[in-house]
Order: sequence, then C-alpha cells, then structure tokens
Amino acid sequence: MPDISDISRLSINLATVRERYKITEALDAVARHGIPAVAPWRDQIAQIGLKATRQHIHKLGLKVSGVCRGGMFPARDKAGFAANLADNARALEEAIELEADCLVLVVGGMPEGSRDLQGARQQVQDGIAWLVEKAKPSGTRIAIEPLHPMYCADRSVVNTMAQALDICDAVGGTVGVACDVYHVWWDPNLREQIARAGASRLHAFHICDWLRNTKDLLLDRGMMGDGVIDIRQIRTWVEAEGYVKFHEVEIFSKDDWWKRDIDDVLATCIQRHRDCC
Amino acid sequence: MPDISDISRLSINLATVRERYKITEALDAVARHGIPAVAPWRDQIAQIGLKATRQHIHKLGLKVSGVCRGGMFPARDKAGFAANLADNARALEEAIELEADCLVLVVGGMPEGSRDLQGARQQVQDGIAWLVEKAKPSGTRIAIEPLHPMYCADRSVVNTMAQALDICDAVGGTVGVACDVYHVWWDPNLREQIARAGASRLHAFHICDWLRNTKDLLLDRGMMGDGVIDIRQIRTWVEAEGYVKFHEVEIFSKDDWWKRDIDDVLATCIQRHRDCC
Repeated sequence: MPDISDISRLSINLATVRERYKITEALDAVARHGIPAVAPWRDQIAQIGLKATRQHIHKLGLKVSGVCRGGMFPARDKAGFAANLADNARALEEAIELEADCLVLVVGGMPEGSRDLQGARQQVQDGIAWLVEKAKPSGTRIAIEPLHPMYCADRSVVNTMAQALDICDAVGGTVGVACDVYHVWWDPNLREQIARAGASRLHAFHICDWLRNTKDLLLDRGMMGDGVIDIRQIRTWVEAEGYVKFHEVEIFSKDDWWKRDIDDVLATCIQRHRDCC
Repeated sequence: MPDISDISRLSINLATVRERYKITEALDAVARHGIPAVAPWRDQIAQIGLKATRQHIHKLGLKVSGVCRGGMFPARDKAGFAANLADNARALEEAIELEADCLVLVVGGMPEGSRDLQGARQQVQDGIAWLVEKAKPSGTRIAIEPLHPMYCADRSVVNTMAQALDICDAVGGTVGVACDVYHVWWDPNLREQIARAGASRLHAFHICDWLRNTKDLLLDRGMMGDGVIDIRQIRTWVEAEGYVKFHEVEIFSKDDWWKRDIDDVLATCIQRHRDCC
C-alpha cells in the first residue's frame, strides 16, 4: 500500500477556514502550503464569481475534490420542490465548471413544521434521481453525504451509509457517497457499508474528529487527533476498497480553528493528516 | 385498541422535574395529579435512601416503570470494569426493592482517552451478560436503552435498536430494550426493529420530543408536541407488538421545563400525552 497520508492526498474543504478568510486568500494559502486540492462552498465561489474562481484555482494548479453543496430537496409544496431542483441544477453547473471530483449533497431535513420523515426521505430520493439524470451528459459524480443523525430534523434525513447506498441502488448512474468520518464513525455497520459502496461509489472521504466534550451540534468539530475517532482504521477500510482520491479536511469550529491564523490551521492539517490519519 | 393515551398509561421519569424538586416533592406531585407511575434516578433515591423511597412510593400507591440507571460498563482496566459491575449489582438491588418494571441501562461510552469503539462495545456486552445472570433469581427485566449516536463517545456505545437487540439475542434471559423516541426516531429501521423486539423484549417506552432547533446535546429535549417526532406513529408500532406497559415522559430541559413549576410541568405532560402521543 502506498503511504496514503502523504500530502499529495490532502484536500482542504474551505469551510475549515471560512470565518476569517475570503476564497482568494484561502486558495493562495492552500497552494503556498503545497496542498494539492480544495473543496469550495457555493457561497465562497459567489464571493468572486464562478469564472474568477475557476481561473484562480487553475492558475494555482489546484484540484477540486468536491463542490459543497447541492441537496436540500424537501419542501412544503411542489413549487418549493421545483425551486430546490433548479438550485441543484446551478450547483451542478458549478461542479462541472470547476471540474470537481464530485458535487456533494447535503440532502435536507424535514420542511419546517413537518413531522413526515418518510415523506421527506421520498422527496430526497426523487430529487436525487432528477439530479443524476441531469448530470448524465457531463458524467459528474453526485455524492450523497449521510449526515449524523443529530441533523435529521433540519439538515439531512439521510443519516447512514446504508441509507445513502439504498438510494444509490435505486437511482443508479453516477451517484455514490461522501464518507465523512464525523457523521459515520459511530455506525456499527460502517465497515460492511464501505465495502458495499466499493471504489466506484466512494466519491469522497472527509476527515476531522469528534470531540468527546462536544459543545455545539454544528460548529464544534475537532482537528484530527483531538477526538475519539479511529480515523486511520476507517481510512484503511476505504482504501481497502480501492479508494484513491483525496482525504478532505472539513472542520466547522467556531470557537477554535475558525479563530486561528490560516497558516497555523493548514500546517496543523498537514501534520495531523500525516500522523493521525 | 384501547385508548392508550389515557392517564392510566402515563409515567413520569423524575429527571423531568429534577432541578427544583426533591424526590418526595416530586412523588407527591405525581400522585396529586393522578399519574399512576414514576421512574426515579438512583441519585434521587439516595436523597432519602432506598427504604424510605420504597415506603413513600408504596404509601402513594405509585407503580415504578423503571429505575435509572445501570450500565456505564466500559473501563480502562479490569479493576475499573469490576467496580462498574459492582455498581450495577447495587442498581439491580434498587430495581428489585422498588419492584420496578425494569432496570434501565445506559451502557456507557468509550473510556476517557480511548479510540477503541469495538473494545468498548465488547465490554458492554460482557457486562450485560454478567448482569442478566445476576438478575435471574429475581427475574428483574434488564432494559438496554440505545442512546442517540451523538452520545456514542461519552455515554453509550449502543446507538440503535438493532444493536441493542443483537446483544439481547446473544445474551438471552430477561434482557430487552427501552425504546425512547428521542434516541431512535431518526432510524430508518425503527419499525422493523420494534417488530423484531416484540412485546416480550419491549421493556419500556419513553417519550419526549426532538426540537428542530436543539441548542444543547444533553439538556434541550422538548415536550411532546413541540418537536418533529411523530410520537403517535412510533407508539402505534410499539402497541402493535402488544406493548401494554407505561409511556414514560423523560425530559432533560435545562432552560425550559426544568425551570418551571412542577404542577405546570405535570399538567402539560398529561395534556400532551393525551393530545400528541
């Protein structure tokens, strides 16, 4: 097996440095540290526009491990659902333009005021089927990211790898999964579901850590090595299936990493990726 | 089907009123409201001692739907594990003395500093096997409560009904599950796993609600009807298996329900149990 913790496998999801730095500063810093790839969010792309983002990334010679994000399908009514599909079409265009490894989907929670979990899950499957059809001409990979069950109400009604793969089985085409250790580390079926996905459906691998004393449901993720996840083991399972794409660091950390200098953050990402992943 | 939201099915887990009221005040208030059952925590029992608790409960004619809690098995070393077993033996004695429907287990998270999730899960299964053997003479039911995956690091490495039932299958005896809607509502396999449990292994049914805008991982549970869970549907699944025991309200709510007057809390529990469950 190659040394997979080499910096050549590292990607930085730009959410990791989103609070203090604009997309251009973030891209420049990533390139300066010799990190070969990034994953921008759509609101970051919008800071300078899609064309300028593409040019800047191209000039720096960076790869794009993913675009965040499509999804957020469930709506209260048909008009809302149609609007959500239209937004996904735009997200797909951005992923195509940036030649991203995949478009990452955070599929959406239950519409405000709803208790119909099953209905929301059906809307998600319908939306993904529509989007995968839309992605056919370009061959863009669509990556369903199962989110931790604590986000089921408001962000994602897809909460396990098994559930995401059930949708992949039903929809077919270029749809696969983004496996983020933060969301799936607790799952007793994780190893078997990674095997079920296989290399052809493992579109992305995201890393960070779960802090034992997590203070916030959304914005208190840990740097690799600071929490309880055996990241190396999960990485081994993913690699055993033949996954050869990037290890993308994605850390939402309001009170810690988001406050730090970008060179400190990126140097730590490089070191922890090498030592703990 | 009988009207299962009748007050005769209601139980109050005393955690729901734990911040402002001692166990005697809480028991008196529950009885005053005509609610037939309670589930005390061991630290509440310790406020006046086990004998006095039993006498007070008996005097008021209350039933005990469960004692919280045994569990917390995983330890760093053998001495720690043995100490945890000894503590479970004491918890079992309290459940027997109070003639509780079951002893509820929160099985424990990973030992501090550990990343060995599989090892912690093995310790849990070993601990439960030991405890179930210990419970044989009295026939006390042992109820594994799967906790939401967000508690996997520090409170419970058993996070789904399927996982709890796998342990039940392996251990046998009087062990079953406590199905708390807060912990399991998101699970795509919930209905089938409730059916797999069956009446003989559904030892308890706990109710509260998941607030869409949850602010705290531990202490921001909602009153039934204030959140996103379709409690009535889950109740229907449980009842369809023949579950005829109590519906136990368990709400940890630091900034809302814990601050309120006990008569307000209990009156609301009665009304919401009738209207939303």
